[in-house]
This record gives sequence, C-alpha cells and structure tokens, in this order.
Amino acid sequence: MRQLCDEIADAIADATDGVLGPSAAGADVVGQGADGTPTKRLDRIAEDAALDVVERHGDLRVVSEEAGSVAFGDPERTLVLDPVDGTYNAGSGIPHYAVSIAIADGDDVADVEYGYVRDLVTGTTFAAAEGDGATRDGTPLEVTDVDDRTAMALGGVYNIEGFDPARFRRVRLLGCSSLELCYTAAGALDAFVDLRARLRVVDFAAGALIVEEAGGVVTDEDGEPVTGPVTADHRSSLVAGGPASHETAMAEVER
Amino acid sequence: MRQLCDEIADAIADATDGVLGPSAAGADVVGQGADGTPTKRLDRIAEDAALDVVERHGDLRVVSEEAGSVAFGDPERTLVLDPVDGTYNAGSGIPHYAVSIAIADGDDVADVEYGYVRDLVTGTTFAAAEGDGATRDGTPLEVTDVDDRTAMALGGVYNIEGFDPARFRRVRLLGCSSLELCYTAAGALDAFVDLRARLRVVDFAAGALIVEEAGGVVTDEDGEPVTGPVTADHRSSLVAGGPASHETAMAEVER
Repeated sequence: MRQLCDEIADAIADATDGVLGPSAAGADVVGQGADGTPTKRLDRIAEDAALDVVERHGDLRVVSEEAGSVAFGDPERTLVLDPVDGTYNAGSGIPHYAVSIAIADGDDVADVEYGYVRDLVTGTTFAAAEGDGATRDGTPLEVTDVDDRTAMALGGVYNIEGFDPARFRRVRLLGCSSLELCYTAAGALDAFVDLRARLRVVDFAAGALIVEEAGGVVTDEDGEPVTGPVTADHRSSLVAGGPASHETAMAEVER
Repeated sequence: MRQLCDEIADAIADATDGVLGPSAAGADVVGQGADGTPTKRLDRIAEDAALDVVERHGDLRVVSEEAGSVAFGDPERTLVLDPVDGTYNAGSGIPHYAVSIAIADGDDVADVEYGYVRDLVTGTTFAAAEGDGATRDGTPLEVTDVDDRTAMALGGVYNIEGFDPARFRRVRLLGCSSLELCYTAAGALDAFVDLRARLRVVDFAAGALIVEEAGGVVTDEDGEPVTGPVTADHRSSLVAGGPASHETAMAEVER
C-alpha cells in the first residue's frame, strides 16, 4: 500500500508542478465536486493524475473529492483520496497543502487500515498501517498527553459555540486538516478539535488513523468512535489527541 | 539593504540547518529574551549568526527579540530583527517560520524604510523599499480590495472580544505574523487583524511596510497610523489590508 500511495503522491506532485503556488493559475473554477463544492483546475489535474495510477494498479474503488466514487477492475478495497487538501492555500500561495490517502477494506470509516499524507510543499510523508504504528519519513510518531489545557496547542478549532480556544495555550488554523491531524500525531499539536460537522471523510480518514497509530484517541463530539459511510459527501465532527489531551479537550467541549 | 538582508537570512538558514525542524532539538530553553519571553536555543543560534553579519557590515544598531538593542560602529540606522518568527512551529515541526528584518532611519516604527521577510522553509522572499513597491521573489505584489466580509480571508484574528471571525469566509492562524502580513500583501489573505496589543515591533515592522508598499493600509485598532518606539518590548495591535478590506475589517472591530 505504501508503494501505491507513493506513486499516487509522486504523480500528483509532478502533474501539479507549475499549477500550484503563488501564481494562482490553478485556482480557476472548472466545475462542481461530488460534495457540491467548486472544483478548481488544480484539484481536477491532481485527481486525474491519481486516477491514472489507480487504473494501472486496478481492483480498487476510489472515493475522491471531485469524482465521487469510481471502480476499477474488481475492487476489494476502497481508496479514499483528497488529491489536494488545502486547495485555497495551494491556489493563493500559502505553502501548506497535502495529498491525503486512506485505504479501507470495507464501506465504513472504521474500516480504514492504511493512512498516508504527503506534504506537497516539503515532501514530508506521514503514514500509518493499522496495528503497526505511525511514522513521519520513517521515524515513529507519538502523540503528547497533556492534562493542563493552558499548556495545550490546538488545531482545527474555529469559532465553536461554547468552546473557547483562548482557554488553551496556542491555536493553529492552517487550512489543511489532514496535516493538522498529522501534527497532532507528531506531538506538534496536542489536540485537534473540529465540531462543525463539516470535515469530509476524504479530509480526515488518513489523518485519523495516523493519530490513532501514534497512540491517540479519535472520536466524534460525543466521545463516540467515528463511523459513517465512506462517501465523498459524508461529513463528521472530530476530536483527536493523546488520551489525556483528548479528555482535556472533550471537557471543554462539554462545558 | 537587500544584499545585507540576503546575507543575514542566508547566515540564519545555514546556522539553523539541523536545529530547526521536526526533531525539536532547537526548542530547548536557554534563557530569557529582551521582551521577557523564553529564549529557545534556535533563536539564540539564529540571532548570533545574524549579529556576526551585522558586525562585519558595521554602523548599525540592531533591535532583536533576544539581545534587545546592540550598537555596531557609529549607527545611523536601526535594523529590527526577528531571527526566527514562528519559533514554536520551527521547534515542533510545523513548516512555517521566517526571518523578519526591517530597517529604520529613526527611532520610531513609522521610520521603517525597508522590510524583508524570508520563509525559512521554502526560501520565498518578500521585500519592500519605501516608495518602491513590494515584491515576492522579485514579482510585484498587490493587496486585494474586498468590501464583502463574507468573501474575506483573514489572518491574525484570534478570539477577540466583540470581533467574530465566523462572519468572514476564511481564517488562517499560522503562528508566524510576519508571513501572515506578507500573505496579506500578496492577496492570499484579504486582511490581517490582531487586536491583542501583543504584536512586537520585531514581528510586524517588516510585514507592515510590505503591506503598505503593496497598496495596503496599516493602522492600530483605532484606525490611526502605527507609531511607537523601535524597541524589543514595544507591542501594538494591527489591522492591515487593501483600503476597502481594511475598512471592512475595521467596521467589524467597531461593532
């Protein structure tokens, strides 16, 4: 699975070279994605490059931001793809966007068995296989575990009613959820909290497994396991972090 | 001035190579900066590298995050330096930190005549000379001008009482104010709003000139020009953006 993901990420990096970046040439709207949001030219270019690789590989269903669901051969597994997470950043020249790929052996988010996120600016790659731990460029990752909210760095948090980010030490909103989840797995952020029920499966499926495999806990806003259909338009809330960090963040959610 | 800034940024990039990044080796606290915040090892290493360059150049006063104020030779100008803006990011592996350098021909923030910000991850360089426009890697920059708050992308905004970021389209909190100001100059963000009166001169002096030279307006929270002493501990609020964007953001400040 690692090799397939590397090939897809390489193909996307090659295809979008010159389209991404400050020129904003890739930000032109060319259609509407499967989840109803506008499709940018660079999303389409990146997705086409990824689908070419999967087609050669065969026997996979692809669920992607723009194309919706596409089957190749006789699929046993589903590849959940966001070809460019952070499209606004990529099109406007903010160097923070990534390829996000999850592979599931069933139709539910809980069936994800492999997660892969490649930072398209730095080339840094985060990956996790179920039961096998999480890595950044091959180095094992471990979440932090913090029970003092005033010492915590949070990602994802944004203007949530009854949830006051100023009660925490630091907040980052990078505009790229998959990378914010990976920074949570790596301990650069202590927790990730998005309660808007706006996160798409393609955005969080890979990052959520990477957090879990780094020793973290990932739930919905009620503290329940995240489940739901692997489709382009399914959305969820998400709270993720080391066990104590997760509990500390959840205590604020419930205030 | 450009050449001096390039030399300083190159020296910092060389000196911090291997200290910055995911290993967090540079995040060890080694002392207390001139503004009272903890000095990290990488801040100290970066500042020492910069001071070596300025010492060779001579005849400059340096105001820096860690060292406070240091005079070399017979200074006519002041170099306002943040050797690593975004120390937390740099030490924890979030790839978003920069060198920020402003050069002033007087003792007030209003006397800044040159601004320079180098992204230490991508190498992208933003620069502006007073009256001469702003550039990113040599390409001229222009702010956006937006009068519809629901279409605006904001940087800097964080949990400001009476100021609701959810009334805007997008928010980015990158943990590096100098770069957020440069993205405002480049039109990737429509406005930058920080009302906590916590921004230090070393953080905003370069970025503020870059916004102005890209056609933007920069004021304090009362809409007045930003003034104050060029010292390591002086802090200010800041609202920056194209004229209409600035006015739109200010209208929200005053609600």
